[in-house]
Amino acid sequence: MNQQILIANGPNLGRLGAREVDVYGELDFPALVRACSAWAAELGFDASVRQTDDEAELVSWLHAAADQGMPVILNPAAFTHYSYALRDAAAEVSLLIEVHITNPASRERFRRRSVVAEVARGTIAGFGFDSYRLALEALARLRR
Amino acid sequence: MNQQILIANGPNLGRLGAREVDVYGELDFPALVRACSAWAAELGFDASVRQTDDEAELVSWLHAAADQGMPVILNPAAFTHYSYALRDAAAEVSLLIEVHITNPASRERFRRRSVVAEVARGTIAGFGFDSYRLALEALARLRR
Amino acid sequence: MNQQILIANGPNLGRLGAREVDVYGELDFPALVRACSAWAAELGFDASVRQTDDEAELVSWLHAAADQGMPVILNPAAFTHYSYALRDAAAEVSLLIEVHITNPASRERFRRRSVVAEVARGTIAGFGFDSYRLALEALARLRR
Amino acid sequence: MNQQILIANGPNLGRLGAREVDVYGELDFPALVRACSAWAAELGFDASVRQTDDEAELVSWLHAAADQGMPVILNPAAFTHYSYALRDAAAEVSLLIEVHITNPASRERFRRRSVVAEVARGTIAGFGFDSYRLALEALARLRR
Amino acid sequence: MNQQILIANGPNLGRLGAREVDVYGELDFPALVRACSAWAAELGFDASVRQTDDEAELVSWLHAAADQGMPVILNPAAFTHYSYALRDAAAEVSLLIEVHITNPASRERFRRRSVVAEVARGTIAGFGFDSYRLALEALARLRR
Amino acid sequence: MNQQILIANGPNLGRLGAREVDVYGELDFPALVRACSAWAAELGFDASVRQTDDEAELVSWLHAAADQGMPVILNPAAFTHYSYALRDAAAEVSLLIEVHITNPASRERFRRRSVVAEVARGTIAGFGFDSYRLALEALARLRR
Amino acid sequence: MNQQILIANGPNLGRLGAREVDVYGELDFPALVRACSAWAAELGFDASVRQTDDEAELVSWLHAAADQGMPVILNPAAFTHYSYALRDAAAEVSLLIEVHITNPASRERFRRRSVVAEVARGTIAGFGFDSYRLALEALARLRR
Amino acid sequence: MNQQILIANGPNLGRLGAREVDVYGELDFPALVRACSAWAAELGFDASVRQTDDEAELVSWLHAAADQGMPVILNPAAFTHYSYALRDAAAEVSLLIEVHITNPASRERFRRRSVVAEVARGTIAGFGFDSYRLALEALARLRR
Amino acid sequence: MNQQILIANGPNLGRLGAREVDVYGELDFPALVRACSAWAAELGFDASVRQTDDEAELVSWLHAAADQGMPVILNPAAFTHYSYALRDAAAEVSLLIEVHITNPASRERFRRRSVVAEVARGTIAGFGFDSYRLALEALARLRR
Amino acid sequence: MNQQILIANGPNLGRLGAREVDVYGELDFPALVRACSAWAAELGFDASVRQTDDEAELVSWLHAAADQGMPVILNPAAFTHYSYALRDAAAEVSLLIEVHITNPASRERFRRRSVVAEVARGTIAGFGFDSYRLALEALARLRR
Amino acid sequence: MNQQILIANGPNLGRLGAREVDVYGELDFPALVRACSAWAAELGFDASVRQTDDEAELVSWLHAAADQGMPVILNPAAFTHYSYALRDAAAEVSLLIEVHITNPASRERFRRRSVVAEVARGTIAGFGFDSYRLALEALARLRR
Amino acid sequence: MNQQILIANGPNLGRLGAREVDVYGELDFPALVRACSAWAAELGFDASVRQTDDEAELVSWLHAAADQGMPVILNPAAFTHYSYALRDAAAEVSLLIEVHITNPASRERFRRRSVVAEVARGTIAGFGFDSYRLALEALARLRR
Repeated sequence: MNQQILIANGPNLGRLGAREVDVYGELDFPALVRACSAWAAELGFDASVRQTDDEAELVSWLHAAADQGMPVILNPAAFTHYSYALRDAAAEVSLLIEVHITNPASRERFRRRSVVAEVARGTIAGFGFDSYRLALEALARLRR
Repeated sequence: MNQQILIANGPNLGRLGAREVDVYGELDFPALVRACSAWAAELGFDASVRQTDDEAELVSWLHAAADQGMPVILNPAAFTHYSYALRDAAAEVSLLIEVHITNPASRERFRRRSVVAEVARGTIAGFGFDSYRLALEALARLRR
Repeated sequence: MNQQILIANGPNLGRLGAREVDVYGELDFPALVRACSAWAAELGFDASVRQTDDEAELVSWLHAAADQGMPVILNPAAFTHYSYALRDAAAEVSLLIEVHITNPASRERFRRRSVVAEVARGTIAGFGFDSYRLALEALARLRR
Repeated sequence: MNQQILIANGPNLGRLGAREVDVYGELDFPALVRACSAWAAELGFDASVRQTDDEAELVSWLHAAADQGMPVILNPAAFTHYSYALRDAAAEVSLLIEVHITNPASRERFRRRSVVAEVARGTIAGFGFDSYRLALEALARLRR
Repeated sequence: MNQQILIANGPNLGRLGAREVDVYGELDFPALVRACSAWAAELGFDASVRQTDDEAELVSWLHAAADQGMPVILNPAAFTHYSYALRDAAAEVSLLIEVHITNPASRERFRRRSVVAEVARGTIAGFGFDSYRLALEALARLRR
Repeated sequence: MNQQILIANGPNLGRLGAREVDVYGELDFPALVRACSAWAAELGFDASVRQTDDEAELVSWLHAAADQGMPVILNPAAFTHYSYALRDAAAEVSLLIEVHITNPASRERFRRRSVVAEVARGTIAGFGFDSYRLALEALARLRR
Repeated sequence: MNQQILIANGPNLGRLGAREVDVYGELDFPALVRACSAWAAELGFDASVRQTDDEAELVSWLHAAADQGMPVILNPAAFTHYSYALRDAAAEVSLLIEVHITNPASRERFRRRSVVAEVARGTIAGFGFDSYRLALEALARLRR
Repeated sequence: MNQQILIANGPNLGRLGAREVDVYGELDFPALVRACSAWAAELGFDASVRQTDDEAELVSWLHAAADQGMPVILNPAAFTHYSYALRDAAAEVSLLIEVHITNPASRERFRRRSVVAEVARGTIAGFGFDSYRLALEALARLRR
Repeated sequence: MNQQILIANGPNLGRLGAREVDVYGELDFPALVRACSAWAAELGFDASVRQTDDEAELVSWLHAAADQGMPVILNPAAFTHYSYALRDAAAEVSLLIEVHITNPASRERFRRRSVVAEVARGTIAGFGFDSYRLALEALARLRR
Repeated sequence: MNQQILIANGPNLGRLGAREVDVYGELDFPALVRACSAWAAELGFDASVRQTDDEAELVSWLHAAADQGMPVILNPAAFTHYSYALRDAAAEVSLLIEVHITNPASRERFRRRSVVAEVARGTIAGFGFDSYRLALEALARLRR
Repeated sequence: MNQQILIANGPNLGRLGAREVDVYGELDFPALVRACSAWAAELGFDASVRQTDDEAELVSWLHAAADQGMPVILNPAAFTHYSYALRDAAAEVSLLIEVHITNPASRERFRRRSVVAEVARGTIAGFGFDSYRLALEALARLRR
Repeated sequence: MNQQILIANGPNLGRLGAREVDVYGELDFPALVRACSAWAAELGFDASVRQTDDEAELVSWLHAAADQGMPVILNPAAFTHYSYALRDAAAEVSLLIEVHITNPASRERFRRRSVVAEVARGTIAGFGFDSYRLALEALARLRR
């Protein structure tokens, strides 16, 4: 049986394909879900891919993952820059990888600060949807 | 048929009339709704005037407005100062005006920073409920 | 009849006993509820002890307390450091005490900044669950 | 008889139509004078619309307005960011509104700081020439 | 036999009742001594309540307390904001609680910085003389 | 024959008696001229007391004083905080005293910074019109 | 009978005449005492001129002056830059003037910050021993 | 024939296995070379894996890669934090990925600043040697 | 016929030869005018060399130059550090070179900041009057 | 016999013509060498035009120039912003001019800081290859 | 006869052997006195080794040393970070060496700032009691 | 047989005797080598005294010393202020002492920051060549 993992996405990521297409590309969120699910399956994971604009809901998903010892791939989106609530929840997860579709370092200045990175195992940023694929591969290798 | 617009209000604005009366005046939120609806109708708009203390709900309203090409008058209240999630949602709206009932520049220091202003078309602050009326008039003129 | 009071707890405090046990101790949130309820009763209060990870819900609890003139003991947890929405709601409460289980000054640098403290009557930090007991005693003495 | 008001414009605004056309539009300063005069008349004001590149002259206009209890609509242009002399003069005017043709928050970083805003009744920015029209309407409503 | 404790007060606190009565209240320092002594006795402590304007004397009191394993309740007053000498002495005390009569967070900006808090077990601020009573109760509970 | 001196006053000081009466008092600028002229005469000086809102005019007065080796008492008013042009002119004057009617250190934060102080012989602030009298006495003593 | 006043001098000022002669001049502290006493007598004051390197002693002098409603001329010397204990004591004195022999603005950068100035009536700096004479004259005029 | 790529490593990385073994692990640099070469081969790349402590040599490797249109995986090590020379060279490479063995965000504060990130396509940090493997996979996918 | 150019000089530069001779040299402003006119003629320019202490006048000269497409050599003197009004006017000039007689980087700290440099074509500083000659040569070469 | 001079160029300048052509132009480094050599010869100099990406090599060239009393034209490129080693070497050269092909003030923020400028005689920036020609002319005039 | 020197120690150093033994070692202050006295004698000095927690007393020792031309070895302990009073006294001593038992650079951030270092001849830190021995040897060599 | 040690010197130190003679003295680098070698021999060390302007070479020397367990006396010169590459190499050396010929705290502001100090055992600065002798003596005592 495949290992359960959580792929959690923060605010406005449900808008993929509609929002800032020149920055994020034309594929929409369902396409991301499909891609991640397929990649996860290839690597022996059973991925729950979710998105929410709600800080509390995102926090609760991390709590559940922490309770079940479930690894998490987290794209905190705009929460990256201020949500210490998310940071404290992320700190409890045994294995958490921070991903970003774009490279925050080459965008607005405020995007350079991550309050989450300190408690993540690692970070992958800048590869479009492939940031998730790489995170899945990282998980797969850490599992071995 | 009148153009649909959204007048979205952030946290604690539902408390108008109860909270800091010396700062915000004695009129309550239902009075704001009535005033805005009437003003909007005069100017040929059909305004949906809403308030929420919930960042995610506010974000979702902006998403809906973005999808429908609906202009937005936004009073982000305390979210003004930290909610990058709101900022990213606001960036997607084709025409968004930031309003404030009071003049943040003459209050506490932290109120001088707006993370939303950068993605707004313009800002109107300091005129009490009339800040909304002026924003409606701005919309009316932009429509022409 | 006992005076109603609210003991409101912010994000991740529902995880007590599971999260950072070396920092927060082994007792869980239901234990905190029991302890606070008992202490409150001893002091002639009828305490409603609640926790939420949701900023908007926490804000709404403060609104209700403000309407009822109910004193509040608030552990804002991670919201301490950025939630101006919570700050504005707290400013409306007639009597609010900020509590922390641990001593934020001896933890990470970002924990030294409280956006809530300015509008609190006072602050009690660093005594584990007893921070709440002390806050209850402070309330009891202020009532006299 | 109409109420006298002053619409005062700071440095380089006489260059409208010639300078940074992509930012400020193609209409020139005489067009602004005509538009403002007409709008003012509609609203029952007798507007004196003036421009100067000279800090001392601008200050003297505010002094005269203060002496006559005349409301002022002020576009401080580049003085916004450093002229404390203008700020002190503006503080004396009984009713002063700060306007900007563009939205300073979405331009260069130094344009985010206004030393005048603290002493203004309110601010309107980002609506082109209509920023002035809105300020006139704000005045009209404050007069009632 | 009661446990010996030290209640040490820093500069200008001997002026209670004379200085900034609107901030600190009308009770004077001898009243504080009497109140603290009585409260301490109720809780089974033998409290030495002292005040000094002298940094070195305050430091020497902490040294003595450290040598005797005596708990300390410390109101560092203005030393809070700069006396690293006091901080280093406080670090040696096995159990030290920082108290403040007022809430420093709602006063001048410089009062927000405590160089002592990092080495205290906890902090209690904002409850007038009751801040000391609460600190005594905290000690009593820690003793158990 | 009396020594010629210049008493130069910066922007908005011509408004004395009209502006911020609670801060600056009820006496107007002509009263200041009369007072300074009389005090100067008593001390054996022939004082030219002038005021301008114009940075360039103020600069030119300092140039003339520098050429004639004339001592200067300068109240730079709002120019204090930003006019490096004035600073460079002041640096050329052989003996220049900076005066302020009020105490800038107890007003708005921006008033704490003087770009002129570095090149002044000394500073006198906070004594109302007497600040000028004291500066005249300082000059008289330096002359001996 | 002459009014009693206190002329209080902070650390290292007893070293006048020995220390940094190029900065402070060749006259020693007893010369300052003599000069101040004589000037005070001329103006109808009975001045107690004292110096201490001890922060607590300086604080205690201000306490006594506050109790007796005695005006104070204070040269806080190096305490100017960090002693909040002195600041809090100075705040209690009904009439306190800050003096400096030299002009701190033209010396090391750290000398530009005064934590005392905010609570002083006024400041006189840069006139050598005459700074004290001017402060005495300021007192004499304030007494009228 | 396989695509040529460069895997360039900055200062002190030749010390892997000897330096801070608890941070970087026990495998040495030759092991990294072998691992990267093998992984590259699997993915159809011909990788040149090099290390240098010399800023100029590292810069020259990037120049050569830029000339040949060769993708680069760069671990800038300590140069990350200050070498603008490296940054300018990296800007010229058509496809460059920044990797780190550890997670800089959870180490010393100075490690949070990358002057290179702004000109990289993306960043992968925190996965030990696998950071390189993931970068290779990212390249492989970008090639398609 | 020679090309018209403007050589505009800011505040206090009319004082050359009188002011800070050790910094600026002994030649006076008329000497600068003669030198610049002669150099300009050699290079085929007809230079108007002017100086003003008046920000507004300097701004108006730049406006005229902008209207006539006339190149400008600008020594903004003290305005360099704060005059955004000058900056905005300079931005309109099609070809503007910033010159300084001295090297601001080796003088007071505040002289390191130029608000004008960003909108200049280039900067030449530190060569005495020759800074102007070099700027003229730069213009001559740009003209080709 | 012509005077020997050194024209030293820092990192990545060997890439001229290949790198950021829109910023630096299409001419390559050999073209710069030819142009500088020719210009130097015209002016009676024998110029050694060199480039290196190696901080130590650049430092050594300055050492040699210092020993021989040889003037230096230095384009420190990216070293401008951090190389204190280069700064210390430059300080030893008797006559050193800093040049930049582009205008750093109108590029990225980090390019505004020069650690070298303080020890240069002067700076010329923004004129493309002509920056070097102007520096040569500056040298020629300083030689007279 | 041996040269008299002063070895002066600041606050909390009398606690050596009791305080933070893992940082400062197990030897107590009398052991330090014995060691320093012996080392001094070997080197031909007659050392007075003293400690005080009192800023004023420490200042007075430096005054005495300055009067007698006596060299000083000073461990300012916590005063290092804020006592400008001590700094001004130290500036008067003809030959003063700052010593620290530990290496402040590898402890808390606030310990990196020394307000004394600027006026010391040199600094020796990090060698335990041997820091004093090395300072004595430095003095011995400077004496030659 | 004597213990091998490394005395490593950073950029521009080979210029001793030629550069800034008023700061560094007239003795040249060979004199430093001779002095250090002799002092080392006296203390039973076999010292290799080297200097390089090359960051990579300096790093490599530290690597070799780390491999051989050889103590290092390091004068990082200008690298002190920015070379994190050197810092990371220094961190690997088992026993490293940072020395400076002059006292950086009394020179330019940028010299106050050492990125190396945190990983050094201790620091000795300000004693001319004797800084090295004292470091050798420190080593000798640590060896015992």
